[in-house]
Amino acid sequence: MSKRYKITIEYDGRPFVGWQRQINGLGVQGAIEAALAKFSGETVRVHGSGRTDAGVHACGQVAHFDLTKDMPTQKVMAALNYHLNEHPISILDIEQVHSEFHARFDAKRRHYTYRILNRRALPTFSRGQVWHVYHPIDVDVMHEAAQQLVGTHDFTTFRHIRCQSKSPIKTIDSLTIERVGDDVTLNVKALSFLHHQIRSITGTLKMVGTGRWSAADLKAALDAKDRTALGFNAPPDGLYFMKVEY
Amino acid sequence: MSKRYKITIEYDGRPFVGWQRQINGLGVQGAIEAALAKFSGETVRVHGSGRTDAGVHACGQVAHFDLTKDMPTQKVMAALNYHLNEHPISILDIEQVHSEFHARFDAKRRHYTYRILNRRALPTFSRGQVWHVYHPIDVDVMHEAAQQLVGTHDFTTFRHIRCQSKSPIKTIDSLTIERVGDDVTLNVKALSFLHHQIRSITGTLKMVGTGRWSAADLKAALDAKDRTALGFNAPPDGLYFMKVEY
Repeated sequence: MSKRYKITIEYDGRPFVGWQRQINGLGVQGAIEAALAKFSGETVRVHGSGRTDAGVHACGQVAHFDLTKDMPTQKVMAALNYHLNEHPISILDIEQVHSEFHARFDAKRRHYTYRILNRRALPTFSRGQVWHVYHPIDVDVMHEAAQQLVGTHDFTTFRHIRCQSKSPIKTIDSLTIERVGDDVTLNVKALSFLHHQIRSITGTLKMVGTGRWSAADLKAALDAKDRTALGFNAPPDGLYFMKVEY
Repeated sequence: MSKRYKITIEYDGRPFVGWQRQINGLGVQGAIEAALAKFSGETVRVHGSGRTDAGVHACGQVAHFDLTKDMPTQKVMAALNYHLNEHPISILDIEQVHSEFHARFDAKRRHYTYRILNRRALPTFSRGQVWHVYHPIDVDVMHEAAQQLVGTHDFTTFRHIRCQSKSPIKTIDSLTIERVGDDVTLNVKALSFLHHQIRSITGTLKMVGTGRWSAADLKAALDAKDRTALGFNAPPDGLYFMKVEY
């Protein structure tokens, strides 16, 4: 009789090919599965609440898995962290859940943050962990333009050409942009996102923030429903999967 | 006729042997001097407001240097940052100052911060940039005990055996400890510090915060004026030179 566990995961995406395993390298999912195998002896499949691309980070990715080995819940977390020691992956929380819980299908809302360092000098502490934008960003203009994307829209313009979602229609619950000193932070919440949606939105909003595009240009790009109308796709460096609501 | 410049510097201390050059590797000072030589052709000596040890970081180190080459001030900063590109060192600010200004001798107050990550799981984003403390810290107890160190004292207990300061007597203007989530931050201000003083204070205060020492034990260690009475020397990872007042 196996038990199902829900875990909350933090990872620095830099050394990984993304959440999922790939032919060309290690995924976060595979690293956690390998750690589980080491102390349980079981071949365990870890199901994430959503995929992240190569170089994308997480502060609150959620996943579930089943374990036959009978262990106290906190010991499972301690053993996982011990065997993940060599990777920048930490299990922050664990709980035993009912056998029907599914990290992906039961998710009600996902929170992402995109971090920009807006200054002339290169990042020192956070290379690969922020997008360095040299030109000054007007955060108020950027925030106001962004409100045109809130709600239900056809996001074809902001969608990777290999996106596997059946529909390009998504609902953004909230999208805010704030500045604290040189740190510009975009926070976005939705049930789910298209592949590259947040990076595409961020890259295009940055063009508005730096004055190259107007708010009307952004609206026209959305209305075009055409990937070639995209302003710019932001790099993975600044993207963080923050939280999943169930 | 040379001009004197004052610069504000941010650096990640991990790849360096410290601020100063050493036989065994590159110092931050040497890296900046090499960058200056590249675009000016001059052999320039950079004078820091204070040394930092190997692995110690800075968000606001200040230094001065003289340049004979006539260049607009902002171009000096841009050229410095361009040639420092390969290192995690960024020049955040520059100004031309009078020829008598001295980064070290004119400093009125230095601000340092020590960052602790207080949780069970290892750091992911900030390995080498925080001290990871596994046992729960009571920040209120730690802060209250720390107030015994504020003011003028003989800090022999909290001084490296190779410290070159003439006197072990120093005045701490303020010392506060705060928590935001898992992040515990110690902020300390003084005209100047002994070698290893902040790391020694932090390591010993951590023993109070985790309950191994009482506030009275801390006071006894201070009063002992004896290095062997020290509780623990914190690692360089969490220490940041934040600001210099002139």
